[in-house]
Amino acid sequence: MRVAVIGASGYSGAELTALLLAHPAVDELHLVSRTYAGQPLAAVLPHLRQPLARVAKPWAQDLHFEALSPEAVASQSDCVFCATPAGAARPLARAAWEAGIRLVDLGADFRLHDATLYPKFYSFAHDEQTLPLLSVAVYGLSEWYRAAIEVARLVANPGCYPTATLLSTLPLARAGLLGEGTVSVVGLSGVSGAGATPAAGYHFPEMTENTRPYNVLRHRHTPEMEQELSQVAGHPVAVAFVPQLVPMSRGILTTSFLPLARSATTAELLSIYRETYQDSPFIRVLGEEYLPQTKAVQGSNYCDLTVRATADGRQAVAWAALDNLRKGAAGQAVQNMNLMFGLPETTGLEAVPLWP
Amino acid sequence: MRVAVIGASGYSGAELTALLLAHPAVDELHLVSRTYAGQPLAAVLPHLRQPLARVAKPWAQDLHFEALSPEAVASQSDCVFCATPAGAARPLARAAWEAGIRLVDLGADFRLHDATLYPKFYSFAHDEQTLPLLSVAVYGLSEWYRAAIEVARLVANPGCYPTATLLSTLPLARAGLLGEGTVSVVGLSGVSGAGATPAAGYHFPEMTENTRPYNVLRHRHTPEMEQELSQVAGHPVAVAFVPQLVPMSRGILTTSFLPLARSATTAELLSIYRETYQDSPFIRVLGEEYLPQTKAVQGSNYCDLTVRATADGRQAVAWAALDNLRKGAAGQAVQNMNLMFGLPETTGLEAVPLWP
Amino acid sequence: MRVAVIGASGYSGAELTALLLAHPAVDELHLVSRTYAGQPLAAVLPHLRQPLARVAKPWAQDLHFEALSPEAVASQSDCVFCATPAGAARPLARAAWEAGIRLVDLGADFRLHDATLYPKFYSFAHDEQTLPLLSVAVYGLSEWYRAAIEVARLVANPGCYPTATLLSTLPLARAGLLGEGTVSVVGLSGVSGAGATPAAGYHFPEMTENTRPYNVLRHRHTPEMEQELSQVAGHPVAVAFVPQLVPMSRGILTTSFLPLARSATTAELLSIYRETYQDSPFIRVLGEEYLPQTKAVQGSNYCDLTVRATADGRQAVAWAALDNLRKGAAGQAVQNMNLMFGLPETTGLEAVPLWP
Amino acid sequence: MRVAVIGASGYSGAELTALLLAHPAVDELHLVSRTYAGQPLAAVLPHLRQPLARVAKPWAQDLHFEALSPEAVASQSDCVFCATPAGAARPLARAAWEAGIRLVDLGADFRLHDATLYPKFYSFAHDEQTLPLLSVAVYGLSEWYRAAIEVARLVANPGCYPTATLLSTLPLARAGLLGEGTVSVVGLSGVSGAGATPAAGYHFPEMTENTRPYNVLRHRHTPEMEQELSQVAGHPVAVAFVPQLVPMSRGILTTSFLPLARSATTAELLSIYRETYQDSPFIRVLGEEYLPQTKAVQGSNYCDLTVRATADGRQAVAWAALDNLRKGAAGQAVQNMNLMFGLPETTGLEAVPLWP
Repeated sequence: MRVAVIGASGYSGAELTALLLAHPAVDELHLVSRTYAGQPLAAVLPHLRQPLARVAKPWAQDLHFEALSPEAVASQSDCVFCATPAGAARPLARAAWEAGIRLVDLGADFRLHDATLYPKFYSFAHDEQTLPLLSVAVYGLSEWYRAAIEVARLVANPGCYPTATLLSTLPLARAGLLGEGTVSVVGLSGVSGAGATPAAGYHFPEMTENTRPYNVLRHRHTPEMEQELSQVAGHPVAVAFVPQLVPMSRGILTTSFLPLARSATTAELLSIYRETYQDSPFIRVLGEEYLPQTKAVQGSNYCDLTVRATADGRQAVAWAALDNLRKGAAGQAVQNMNLMFGLPETTGLEAVPLWP
Repeated sequence: MRVAVIGASGYSGAELTALLLAHPAVDELHLVSRTYAGQPLAAVLPHLRQPLARVAKPWAQDLHFEALSPEAVASQSDCVFCATPAGAARPLARAAWEAGIRLVDLGADFRLHDATLYPKFYSFAHDEQTLPLLSVAVYGLSEWYRAAIEVARLVANPGCYPTATLLSTLPLARAGLLGEGTVSVVGLSGVSGAGATPAAGYHFPEMTENTRPYNVLRHRHTPEMEQELSQVAGHPVAVAFVPQLVPMSRGILTTSFLPLARSATTAELLSIYRETYQDSPFIRVLGEEYLPQTKAVQGSNYCDLTVRATADGRQAVAWAALDNLRKGAAGQAVQNMNLMFGLPETTGLEAVPLWP
Repeated sequence: MRVAVIGASGYSGAELTALLLAHPAVDELHLVSRTYAGQPLAAVLPHLRQPLARVAKPWAQDLHFEALSPEAVASQSDCVFCATPAGAARPLARAAWEAGIRLVDLGADFRLHDATLYPKFYSFAHDEQTLPLLSVAVYGLSEWYRAAIEVARLVANPGCYPTATLLSTLPLARAGLLGEGTVSVVGLSGVSGAGATPAAGYHFPEMTENTRPYNVLRHRHTPEMEQELSQVAGHPVAVAFVPQLVPMSRGILTTSFLPLARSATTAELLSIYRETYQDSPFIRVLGEEYLPQTKAVQGSNYCDLTVRATADGRQAVAWAALDNLRKGAAGQAVQNMNLMFGLPETTGLEAVPLWP
Repeated sequence: MRVAVIGASGYSGAELTALLLAHPAVDELHLVSRTYAGQPLAAVLPHLRQPLARVAKPWAQDLHFEALSPEAVASQSDCVFCATPAGAARPLARAAWEAGIRLVDLGADFRLHDATLYPKFYSFAHDEQTLPLLSVAVYGLSEWYRAAIEVARLVANPGCYPTATLLSTLPLARAGLLGEGTVSVVGLSGVSGAGATPAAGYHFPEMTENTRPYNVLRHRHTPEMEQELSQVAGHPVAVAFVPQLVPMSRGILTTSFLPLARSATTAELLSIYRETYQDSPFIRVLGEEYLPQTKAVQGSNYCDLTVRATADGRQAVAWAALDNLRKGAAGQAVQNMNLMFGLPETTGLEAVPLWP
């Protein structure tokens, strides 16, 4: 398989690169970076100097970033990943569609079904070229849309917060247990979620020993959560979402407060969750004696989750932990590629979490 | 003023010690530690080796931990601080009461008015000696009970999570804006909040780059929040409280989701908050352009807080950040001592936050 | 291949477990833990709950810790790893030797050729049973003793600090460039190097934002460095070793100041290093424009190293960075197993470093 | 006293601001920032919103950054602090000198006596206006040059690394114990030492769980160490200096390997150190049972130090820990101001270290 990564020098792109270098089905890899075109990998990504993959993949020994040529991408690739800023994947998706190449967009360009939300949350609009793609793009929450992803040609990879929030709340929505009222979500994220561009708020001295909310009640990932929860619940669901940065590099931990449609016990809820994910190798439903923690999934494609009912049985609280660059981005993207190309879902994603 | 600290080698006790060494009204200091009696401070607290206070306070040069002698404490002190495990302050409070000595308990022994809650949440019960003290103990949330604290002889210093949660939600409750329904709170805490006793969960390799919930929906600080919110709101308020550890030493950040009794705007809410705290030097109400962060209060007695209404005006979300060992424990305890002894509220608490 | 790990619940043991679960040549795995015998892996090691290896290795799905039975270990294993406290590997090594089973000791029991050093540095002595094993044990610095390791039945896996120090200084010693005088080494280590047992010095609040030396000039790893440097240099070499803890979980960074036997330039030294390691896939010799950093090797078996001559050409300074639990312990142990069993050196060790 | 801080929005400038706001002798404060002129403090320094100093110093309530007007600075100040980029303090120092105003430069513009070193290490040269000032500037290592500082009008505040290195090695040099040969120094620094400007190398995700050397053997602070060691030793001393970043905000820890002129014991060395610093309130000489750690001095003006002789008595190893923004910069600057203005050395610097 020939694969191209557009935006390979950012954190999601670099994570994809590392995963694809080790992926047994990948025979050719094009790493596109506008900023670093022509430079060797090691100049930007010191960990990828001299990857051991060179033994199996001699071409991996001398990897350089390339400039973006949509034609070259189209003619040289069977699968394209876009890890690009908001809006930039649109023309690439159109070109890939026309060339019959499968594309996974790690950005948000095709996640929302309602085209009017893009200008509001992402400051761009779809035009007549890309608007039709919204209806064929599949939301790439692998465990929930496997069948559609398998036949998809354009996959909209979910955001990191929505992946955690949705995996830990959709079972309840599908069971008809999600009542009226707002779902309140606090999402904690490691700082790699903010990307590789330095800024004062992410400067080590100001972020270490610090914790802070940002973009509260208006984060871009909110409509994505509302869209999927509403669809599965069968009624409109509003989400009050509060993202917060915590002083670590990787990891998402979401806490969701959900109104119950009827009284339920923790045991009943856990049973629904276990059944939902019994055939999902990356989802680990924790029982009553455990709670998720981000370090237990660090560097892996796992999502650990659990749920509890409050004492009065009127509310549920659900938690999920994942690695924002794996299951929250590049890992799920490769999982979707596997599904699209008929490979076992776990291919190239077997990495055990790094502990401690 | 002669002061004794019972439990001076723990984190709250050490913080008290540091504050009292620098407090201009303190002339004599007894540091009680069962574990380290007889040992010099520096053997346990390397930062307190040779404190500069020695210039003004020659006795500070040669401080040692002392064994606990209730009689000595009673005869040698004008004010006693208890930074002791749950239940241990009871006899000391009784002895102090009888000796006419003012006491501030940094533990929970006298925080709850309803005596039946102690066995459930703290595994001890009050007996006929200490039960009567519950009715004279004043809940030491300084900004809300100044007048009562000024005349109190027994102050129950609030917990770190309740201090942050209550300071950022009570203004709304008092204004009659807190509606029916559960208040959902996510509290993030630095690891010093778990105390100085090492354990696997707080072992550096397992806590760094990790974030995790614990004691969810049954944390001991829950009844304290419910008691105060219910009292100020004038109707029963249930709190769903989810504490989480984040990888930093100091700092509490709480996020509270509150049902509104009637529609309100952020501007209206902020105006209520500003008015509430206009004469409170330690409370900094942040406007719409800012959000609290723990580093901005690190090492100080400040509590930074703010509030927002959701777009539909039906819910409010409030945040507060404080240093769990200062405003969340020792700092507020000294603030209460100042009030009890007629000193300016800020005496000995002027420290500017440490940044970055 | 059937493999046993003695001491599987500590950090080195857990790292071995993770590597061996994913190792293609391992068909059977026995995880021995005195403390946790009978318990499932997930109770102690939350990241190893439900490992994906289960697909390829169905037995991995239901792993439990076992009690230590030397006989069982001998009869059930082709290769044994000891990740045990000082002295504890001795009887196991004797039993394995007699049973004809290959053993890799991750501890120090067989690292030192001079038997008199054990009582001094490790508080145990070899007896007539295990003394003879000292002469057949091979020091498992893979890149330097490949041929011997391939035929060895007992391998003494090097310490984490010595691995970094030796890999970055032996090329110079072998080239006859190491002059008279002490070699001074500062070794920085992440806290996982101190093991999984909680203690005040490793308690998160006291270790975060802290850096401190310990066991200076008398650390146990010193004689190991002196033994190997002296042997390769051909004259006695004294090492002044200063270990220091820095606030991170994984990683070793050593800085070595070496007296030169004759004037040399950085280019000359780098050329020697490059030639030394041209066929070593895990050693990355960095040129004049780069310096090692621990994050660039995190979670991998790489050792990044480089060297500089001082301006006057009389001294060299060498740096090495590695992951103390991989190349500094479990990774190198698996590398040695690969060599002992005729497998490609990199089998099961292809993991790309985790960045950022 | 009227004080001006030039460069008040950087980390050293902000630390000075915090210290001066709380300094009892400071009646007027001008905070100069080219970048933030006109803006309120809180827009840049969230911890300094509404400082409590307002009670004692009403003017502190409404502090704004000001534009730089050398005339205004000269006419409005009794003491000026420069926390400016290399070279920028030169004209200010000249203007202050002519106006008869005392100035402390926290940069390097006047630290080196040998004018030829500036172009080499700092890319600027002194001209005829500022060259003469080199001979009247006093190197502000407070404990070593108290008498000169008391009468100085221009103080060159030492760098953070030199302060730690020199305080822990000069006693040995003055005792005639420093032998021939290079002094090798490894200096570990928290990231705030690199300043407040964000860059990839200090971006939280790439710095957390990372440790790395930089500018090895050619760091700007090297000539400063060589100048002072040579002067006190009475013979030329070469320093091989290796700075390294560790993942914390504040703190310097230096390890210095020193050739001894004659054999000496640890006890003998410690006795020399204790005598040297017996009247220095900020220097804590630790005995044989303790080693310095950065957290024990965090947020204070202390420098903790100690020394050991190697087993053969031919080398000494010395360690020092300090807070790079306090004793390593702003704290020592205020200490020097105190000395220059006849105030007690510790005025405004009594802060106890923040622990944990």
